[in-house]
Amino acid sequence: MRRWNGWGDESNSMDLPASAGEFLQNVIGKGVVLADASLASVIASVPKSRAPIHKLINTNEEIRVRHAKGQSLPDYLATRSGHFGLFPDGVCYPENNQDIKDILLLAKEYNLDLIPYGGGTSVAGHINIKQSERAVITVDMSHMNRLISLDTDSNIATFGAGTPGPMVEAQLRAKGYTLGHFPQSFELSTIGGWVASRSSGQQSLRYGRIEQMFAGGSFETFEGTLDLPTFPASSAGPDIREIILGSEGRFGIITEVKVRVTKLAEQEKFSVIFFPDWQMATKFCKAAAQNKISLSMLRVSNAVETQTQLKLAGHEKSISYLEKYLSLRNCKSQKCMLTFGITGSKQQTKATQTQIKPFIKQYQGISTGSMLGNRWAQNRFKFPYLRDALWQQGYVVDTLETATDWHNVDNLLNKVETSLKQGIENKNVHVFTHLSHVYGQGCSLYTTYVFSCEKDYKSTLACWKTLKHEASSTIINNGGTISHQHGVGKDHAPYLEVEKGILGIKLLENICQHFDPNKQLNPGTLLND
Amino acid sequence: MRRWNGWGDESNSMDLPASAGEFLQNVIGKGVVLADASLASVIASVPKSRAPIHKLINTNEEIRVRHAKGQSLPDYLATRSGHFGLFPDGVCYPENNQDIKDILLLAKEYNLDLIPYGGGTSVAGHINIKQSERAVITVDMSHMNRLISLDTDSNIATFGAGTPGPMVEAQLRAKGYTLGHFPQSFELSTIGGWVASRSSGQQSLRYGRIEQMFAGGSFETFEGTLDLPTFPASSAGPDIREIILGSEGRFGIITEVKVRVTKLAEQEKFSVIFFPDWQMATKFCKAAAQNKISLSMLRVSNAVETQTQLKLAGHEKSISYLEKYLSLRNCKSQKCMLTFGITGSKQQTKATQTQIKPFIKQYQGISTGSMLGNRWAQNRFKFPYLRDALWQQGYVVDTLETATDWHNVDNLLNKVETSLKQGIENKNVHVFTHLSHVYGQGCSLYTTYVFSCEKDYKSTLACWKTLKHEASSTIINNGGTISHQHGVGKDHAPYLEVEKGILGIKLLENICQHFDPNKQLNPGTLLND
Repeated sequence: MRRWNGWGDESNSMDLPASAGEFLQNVIGKGVVLADASLASVIASVPKSRAPIHKLINTNEEIRVRHAKGQSLPDYLATRSGHFGLFPDGVCYPENNQDIKDILLLAKEYNLDLIPYGGGTSVAGHINIKQSERAVITVDMSHMNRLISLDTDSNIATFGAGTPGPMVEAQLRAKGYTLGHFPQSFELSTIGGWVASRSSGQQSLRYGRIEQMFAGGSFETFEGTLDLPTFPASSAGPDIREIILGSEGRFGIITEVKVRVTKLAEQEKFSVIFFPDWQMATKFCKAAAQNKISLSMLRVSNAVETQTQLKLAGHEKSISYLEKYLSLRNCKSQKCMLTFGITGSKQQTKATQTQIKPFIKQYQGISTGSMLGNRWAQNRFKFPYLRDALWQQGYVVDTLETATDWHNVDNLLNKVETSLKQGIENKNVHVFTHLSHVYGQGCSLYTTYVFSCEKDYKSTLACWKTLKHEASSTIINNGGTISHQHGVGKDHAPYLEVEKGILGIKLLENICQHFDPNKQLNPGTLLND
Repeated sequence: MRRWNGWGDESNSMDLPASAGEFLQNVIGKGVVLADASLASVIASVPKSRAPIHKLINTNEEIRVRHAKGQSLPDYLATRSGHFGLFPDGVCYPENNQDIKDILLLAKEYNLDLIPYGGGTSVAGHINIKQSERAVITVDMSHMNRLISLDTDSNIATFGAGTPGPMVEAQLRAKGYTLGHFPQSFELSTIGGWVASRSSGQQSLRYGRIEQMFAGGSFETFEGTLDLPTFPASSAGPDIREIILGSEGRFGIITEVKVRVTKLAEQEKFSVIFFPDWQMATKFCKAAAQNKISLSMLRVSNAVETQTQLKLAGHEKSISYLEKYLSLRNCKSQKCMLTFGITGSKQQTKATQTQIKPFIKQYQGISTGSMLGNRWAQNRFKFPYLRDALWQQGYVVDTLETATDWHNVDNLLNKVETSLKQGIENKNVHVFTHLSHVYGQGCSLYTTYVFSCEKDYKSTLACWKTLKHEASSTIINNGGTISHQHGVGKDHAPYLEVEKGILGIKLLENICQHFDPNKQLNPGTLLND
């Protein structure tokens, strides 16, 4: 069963190696373990539902608890403390498009707010409840989870919008295809959620972001149905798909998603190279992207992340041998670990191997083969489980991310890391970053920060608020986007105007008004209203 | 000097080889040569300007004539006959963003319609004047034609929106870069026009469509300035760039364009392969795209286009030897010519050559090396000159294009060609098509049709209207987009609703309303209002 106050299935968990605990204690001090609330106590705190009685609306308290929060750090603290604040008044589980049309009619008739809900994995407050005089109904799409059709001529697959990552891939792989969309949240997040939040997966270098995959589909709104036909490309005016992408449940409910899929590749390999320092590693990435080398993923940890990952890996003895070997080859305390993937036909992967070699040499990279790469691939979706392991030791972890052009990468990274390290006086915050999702123009920067809990939940949350605000302001005031892959939600909405402009924000408000004149769809998300 | 009633510079022209004339006479009968109007007579027909007297507005009659029409076939017939109908009341030549702000203020104050104008190369009526009670001012962007900056770290170039293709490439090439955007209209069309009309170039397979190149820029509207910052990617809500792309002058005036550029490649080669028939040739293209072979362009002429091109080439003797050779290798009357480009580093082009070989063999292609490929590259922007050559012989030529998913390519092609061939009773229309702009999901189809003039302009135009309507209806009712690269303009606006939906069209109207509440910007274009 899925955890109600943590990540993933209860049968899965991850332990923190002893070495990692010691390491954290050294850098940020001893953890402070806070007491967890019980599910029963939270269920007992759920207020009476304001929802109308209707066969489509489930008002069971536990179900309302399980749909109240996403996966941001404040959401995590809420579930652990039991201080939820607000719950939806009910949850719908539509089975088909007609159910969704009926739910929209119901919302009109009874003046309800609706929150479209995919996997509930938002780390930016997308599906949280905003205080409302109306009853709030969460529309859980999980029953619309099937591969509806696959056109093997045009390589277009049609899915129910609530299909989660593993079911997307399993249903396609059974027919020899892949979508190739692997965000960190893959286990739980859904194809509709990926579209609604403009998601990007670990292998975007080969398969593209969800924007490149999303070919069309169906969208139900208060003003009617919008069917987006599939074309390989079109110059027929502004692209309406690009308005649905990133709409975050504000304009309507995505019901069917048509995506561009690819035949499974003959070969796929992940490998690790170490570089002497950040400069060399990032120059390699930029060269690979700008020279259009066909890699399928690319990720460089900065020196602190490299060091932290080697500590987290356990296997102290073999890691120590590896570090000695690297040290002899000039990769010492500032070394940066680069993980990359090559995917394609045998001919293609061989050609790519040949093409990257001169760049590895030019930037003094030391190849360590596929052992660490395979370990990355095996554990690629396990990182979210680490939060629970850290929590047990009295630490909290959060991540934030942005993207910027190459000329600004180092500047932005340094400023964001500093904003977190110095965000709270007399509090040590362990901060590290990796670069990923590499483009000719720039890359994304993904920063993780860990700190010990304060004496209680309230002051722990206050720390997060300070740090999040410092980092978010730093990002938008220094040429970064407020999000490269997590979306806007409620947490980033106050920071959106800098990049969209006043006129752009007004435009989005007008588009909202067009589809949802009474602001019943996911209010407070995307736009700071 | 640029032709006022035809394509390109007066010093350039193209002759029709005698063999081509004979060929056309055989298939569609003798041409009917119509008399041309003189520039002087057209200038004399220009009515008094309704524009206010202002230093920014030029009301010279010849200038007004030269901005009245684009390059569609009805535009061509208008310039040849001298029956222009409507002229702008004046033309502005802004030098900078401030001039554009001033022009917008002027338009507010004097209640003017404005038509943003790039190279005037629209083939869909984008810049034509719609009857209006207001004075109509064309805003010619040609003085804003410079490379403003080049970030060689992030590979972002900033251009004045009025920079035409050759100046884009010349300014970049001087610094070792290319944009790689080569539409047929390259000689005259501008970077701002490419963005406004969602243009696609011949080498989109390597460099992408303008959507992939357009990273940000500045946009002046009646409601204020919209500055679009550059990010490599973002998940921060709907992408406003994608609303500017394809806006066709309805929402505002693009003043600066920031584009993603690429270092000039070490090697580039264009080659030609013949396939026994259309099925084999298209299967090859689909396989190349779906297997992500790194070609930079791909174009297949169907059997009639292949035959026509070989006739147009002149060089009868060498063509006849080529055909004999091909015939021995099973490429006979149904043979299809495929032109492809490979661009990249030496290693990359070699790897690509290796990777396509098995596909060429599988689909029975006969490589003929680079001679015909080089000829294509030399003549790649000359096709528009052919219209004048045909006109001299009493024929008119027009093109139309669409894109569709692979499963529908043959169906749509056959229906579009039939709609043109059978569009007018007892009139022979010579119709041929090529496939280009290949995607994993599908491709574009580009159809050319030639017919002899009728006894006068009016009935020649009537023929075009019938054929255009037949073909456009066929496209939208059979799963094609109304345009893959030409845009909507005024000619395609009546056909847009099928693909955008009623709700989508209303959305675009609301976006118009947001930026231009009094509908003063390019009315009648994009939306059928």
